[in-house]
Amino acid sequence: MRRTSLDDADCPVARALDAVGDWWSLLIVRDAFFGLRRFGEFQKSLGMARNILTVRLRGLVESGILDAVPAADGGAYKEYVLTAKGRDLFPVLVALRQWGEAHQFPGEACRIELVDRDKGAPVQPLELRAADGRRLAGADTLIRTRA
Amino acid sequence: MRRTSLDDADCPVARALDAVGDWWSLLIVRDAFFGLRRFGEFQKSLGMARNILTVRLRGLVESGILDAVPAADGGAYKEYVLTAKGRDLFPVLVALRQWGEAHQFPGEACRIELVDRDKGAPVQPLELRAADGRRLAGADTLIRTRA
Repeated sequence: MRRTSLDDADCPVARALDAVGDWWSLLIVRDAFFGLRRFGEFQKSLGMARNILTVRLRGLVESGILDAVPAADGGAYKEYVLTAKGRDLFPVLVALRQWGEAHQFPGEACRIELVDRDKGAPVQPLELRAADGRRLAGADTLIRTRA
Repeated sequence: MRRTSLDDADCPVARALDAVGDWWSLLIVRDAFFGLRRFGEFQKSLGMARNILTVRLRGLVESGILDAVPAADGGAYKEYVLTAKGRDLFPVLVALRQWGEAHQFPGEACRIELVDRDKGAPVQPLELRAADGRRLAGADTLIRTRA
């Protein structure tokens, strides 16, 4: 990528990070993909202080990433489910996962893997493709201002 | 994705976020992809306090994402360049960029776009593919412990 002159206000990376650029928030989204829905489930999974989890969940609802809905079983507790916007974060989580697998397990094997539910086979690495299908690395791209 | 019982210590997403899960750190990496190399260049681009930038750059070097190298022109200043591990963060930044473009510009157009340097055409959306090439959404995947 090569930079043209841009304010961060115009940068979609900066705007995305502004909405989800928080370690805990992305782990909450990860857990929501795993099917967790309740405050207590997130708390148990993440080991977060209740007040921090409360603030992060509220932020994700305000960002339109989670919806707070009545409990499926008619109970008194709210449940948190991914919106379409939240589900669109899937490639972000997969990209982090694959980078972590490749680089953050020095001298050991990553014990877990993301697989295709139907076939049980590991997924392919995410690859950026040009319009004509060529694989692109960072140096093969640039950003430009739209006409 | 469906969750099996796992500690976050085993989760590559958690480990990745531990290394780069900081708004500023990822914007520094973004700027390094744009070709920025010097402390002053990052500071001007990001408008960060010097002490915060110093800490973030040191963390990225300690994580093996940036290398601190002598200045290309023989000057007294260090320069910061992406390592291979750092360049492998490209899909993470692209995924954030594409999500931001799709969801964080309500009622306005995102003015900048990522294009193929050779052809000048916008890149394709990142898509997760199964081993046999089928496109996979989050609900089409699960994680499992390696045998």
